[in-house]
Amino acid sequence: MSSIPQQSTLPLSSAPQLSYHHSDANIQGLINDIQTRGEDIKWTSEPTTCTSRSSTRHSPASGDQVPKAVFWPKNTGQVAEILRACWERRIAVSSYSGGTSLGGALTASRAGICIDFSSMNEIGEVWEDDAMVSVQPGVGWMELNEKLERDGTGLFWPVDPAPGAKVGGMIAMSCSGTNAYRYGTVKNWIISLTLVLADGTIVKTRNRPKKSSAGYDLNALITGSEGTLALITTAILKLAPLPTNLHVGLSTFPSLQHGLSTALALLKTSALSLEAIELADQNALTAIQTSSLAPGRQWSQTPTLFLKFSGASQEAVSSQIALTSAVCEANSGTPLEASSSQAFIATVWGGRKCLGNALVGMKRAPSDLFLTTDAAVPSSQVARLAEESARIVREECAGEEEGWFCASVAHVGDGNVHTAIVCGEGEGARAEKVVRGIQRVALALEGTATGEHGVGLKLRDLLEEEVGKEGVDLMRNIKFALDPRGILNPDKVVRLKEGF
Amino acid sequence: MSSIPQQSTLPLSSAPQLSYHHSDANIQGLINDIQTRGEDIKWTSEPTTCTSRSSTRHSPASGDQVPKAVFWPKNTGQVAEILRACWERRIAVSSYSGGTSLGGALTASRAGICIDFSSMNEIGEVWEDDAMVSVQPGVGWMELNEKLERDGTGLFWPVDPAPGAKVGGMIAMSCSGTNAYRYGTVKNWIISLTLVLADGTIVKTRNRPKKSSAGYDLNALITGSEGTLALITTAILKLAPLPTNLHVGLSTFPSLQHGLSTALALLKTSALSLEAIELADQNALTAIQTSSLAPGRQWSQTPTLFLKFSGASQEAVSSQIALTSAVCEANSGTPLEASSSQAFIATVWGGRKCLGNALVGMKRAPSDLFLTTDAAVPSSQVARLAEESARIVREECAGEEEGWFCASVAHVGDGNVHTAIVCGEGEGARAEKVVRGIQRVALALEGTATGEHGVGLKLRDLLEEEVGKEGVDLMRNIKFALDPRGILNPDKVVRLKEGF
Repeated sequence: MSSIPQQSTLPLSSAPQLSYHHSDANIQGLINDIQTRGEDIKWTSEPTTCTSRSSTRHSPASGDQVPKAVFWPKNTGQVAEILRACWERRIAVSSYSGGTSLGGALTASRAGICIDFSSMNEIGEVWEDDAMVSVQPGVGWMELNEKLERDGTGLFWPVDPAPGAKVGGMIAMSCSGTNAYRYGTVKNWIISLTLVLADGTIVKTRNRPKKSSAGYDLNALITGSEGTLALITTAILKLAPLPTNLHVGLSTFPSLQHGLSTALALLKTSALSLEAIELADQNALTAIQTSSLAPGRQWSQTPTLFLKFSGASQEAVSSQIALTSAVCEANSGTPLEASSSQAFIATVWGGRKCLGNALVGMKRAPSDLFLTTDAAVPSSQVARLAEESARIVREECAGEEEGWFCASVAHVGDGNVHTAIVCGEGEGARAEKVVRGIQRVALALEGTATGEHGVGLKLRDLLEEEVGKEGVDLMRNIKFALDPRGILNPDKVVRLKEGF
Repeated sequence: MSSIPQQSTLPLSSAPQLSYHHSDANIQGLINDIQTRGEDIKWTSEPTTCTSRSSTRHSPASGDQVPKAVFWPKNTGQVAEILRACWERRIAVSSYSGGTSLGGALTASRAGICIDFSSMNEIGEVWEDDAMVSVQPGVGWMELNEKLERDGTGLFWPVDPAPGAKVGGMIAMSCSGTNAYRYGTVKNWIISLTLVLADGTIVKTRNRPKKSSAGYDLNALITGSEGTLALITTAILKLAPLPTNLHVGLSTFPSLQHGLSTALALLKTSALSLEAIELADQNALTAIQTSSLAPGRQWSQTPTLFLKFSGASQEAVSSQIALTSAVCEANSGTPLEASSSQAFIATVWGGRKCLGNALVGMKRAPSDLFLTTDAAVPSSQVARLAEESARIVREECAGEEEGWFCASVAHVGDGNVHTAIVCGEGEGARAEKVVRGIQRVALALEGTATGEHGVGLKLRDLLEEEVGKEGVDLMRNIKFALDPRGILNPDKVVRLKEGF
């Protein structure tokens, strides 16, 4: 029986005490349970697992934040078996698919066990006429799109985060990428989910209608819940027709604000069906030029707008390009360079795509630190956020011999700005303070600290600054309602215990 | 303290007993509370209210299902005052904005009181560069779009349900309309909500970034919750640029399946940016022709596809129209008639838009009954659902002198089919049975009983057939977590008590 006071929200001070039973004996008991039930589930209790890799790569974990066992289930029933046993034994469960997330969502903060979805990587039925596909959570979005192309379906799943990301984690983290301006984020591309809840209950959120008003939107509640409310074991995804007559274009500007003004004018023009619109600042272009990742072009080291167009015909795209070029020039930009040639697309869009690695390449020494932000603001504030970010970095290292490198690139249609910072090995604490300063600027500009990477462990305090204590207390109430023992990815999104 | 057993779901048999205190003295105490707190809130305890109107129109209420008082708050703080007092006094609260919903979501099933949002009808700030607007819940979508047009913003809010619908109710019911294929449903057009929870807590779900991964998606949880989880007191809405070079087109087909095959082919063609795609069956066209609502045209009484196009230029639209016409003809349709002339658009799209009234016009006597369904299936199953629906109606009145009238019109891009049935005054029970049969066919075709109208009181059992007992039990768990006293629009979406 619960001792939670009955209110619409659950303040941390009123949260029930959680207890986890992570003794070696209880973990061994869990392993025995599962074997006894006759489930053929691969497992290990060695620490050299996927999860410690992810901890190392993305979410530095302290020595006691390593799961004591990892399981590789193969289907929904096996995931339910594991969760039922963990629920009974009060064992915390983190989960893992692609391991590309940032911000600590993968950290096994209470140790416990990890469920690795890499054995659940089957692409199921493809309904071509309905533009839908059923997949297991361990399927990568690139693998899925390669299969859809190989099979000549003319369809794709238009969600493009980091290359290694898998469907389960993508949904859990509410991810997106450069396609989000045109197609929306992952939540727009989910038809139905099969979920396993904390106590092992299996729920299928929907049949597969494209549109539904049938009760609370469980798809949307689980999307972005970072493994804290349920584990996703099957997803029916919505697909889009592949764009035709794809062209890429580029224009450069005397200032970031000029580039932004252009973007805002384009975003208001319904006559365009832009596939993507990305704005990079001067230092980002320096990084592209400095790297050898986008050869074949002398990159102008000035603020640059990268665009993708598609349309019914060559003529339909040409009229979009003409219109866009006029808007660029009216805002002091260079005439739009645009082409559908493979070489041009590979070079110019390749420039935008290599940016992540090009920015990391601005490290002067391999031991230098690389940090990145994920704030999102109303689109009109994108230049201000990027410029304030650069100012904060400049002021932090004013008077120092070698300043820090700082560059910004924006998914400008969504107002989502990634500011990259490179600084020396010993500057971690100062750099984190700078990042926090940038995130607070985003909040002051009516934005969020996280447009697409999620809250994890790192942004919990900023979440409270954004949605208030009441907003966080409401989320915590939902968490404890669905997972009263706090076993699913504890401590992520909202705190379950003071000081944790 | 709660006596809810700690699980991830809450079966009806485990739900706590609710008690409402709806004595005249307690209601009078509530009115006194609010007056004492100095809030200038209009109220009445006469039964001739908006809510009884809605009950009469849409949700036939029994004599004891009429609210004992109605309040007209003017701002978030006043709504919070009312809810805090109702929470303390255990008084049930229904809410009302446009009153266009179907299926019983407006019924004051436990009497209690009603909050009417018609005094919260202000359009607040418009951020043109960000394509956003802040509104109170009593604003109508048509008023909003008229203001945006009057102000020359070039923007609109692309959610088009019944003409009288208001923003608060539209969000609460997860509505959509003919624009949903192109623009998505209401949930795609919400940036941020200000909510009042059952106990009076005020939560603002977000600042106003276009994209966010900041915690659980409270916008989406509240959208479609039918007033059972929170009341919406402000919404920041996302706007879209108005389409340019609008054309309307029409093609007719020898069978509904031919029209559907055409639609499916068009939906797979990324080269098109269709603004709308609607499929009506032969009897629907008979209704248009029979009515005098769409004059100026001899309507072919055959299955018909209605289309809207837009684009960057006249040429861009022409290439879409050429492509579409070829697809129609390849599927035995007539060559596409298409034009941007005001007269053609008024006549042809007017034909589609008058359908609701034209179908009601098929009553032979004013006392005849008119029923409509709202099922949604995978798009490929649209013709099958419509044809099965017609068959069920035919079989129900086989051998009778005058058969029932039955016609279907589909938001075919979303797979959402409205089948209208007209039958005699005394045939209510048989007609409800027929409707249930059609809804079950939709479930068998992997669809839902409600694509855009919501669950209300009428579809609770079918919701369980669709998402299983576990799915409903999960929704009930969320309901009781946020509203443990069950005061917000009780009995809608999920049952709170056996037999209610």
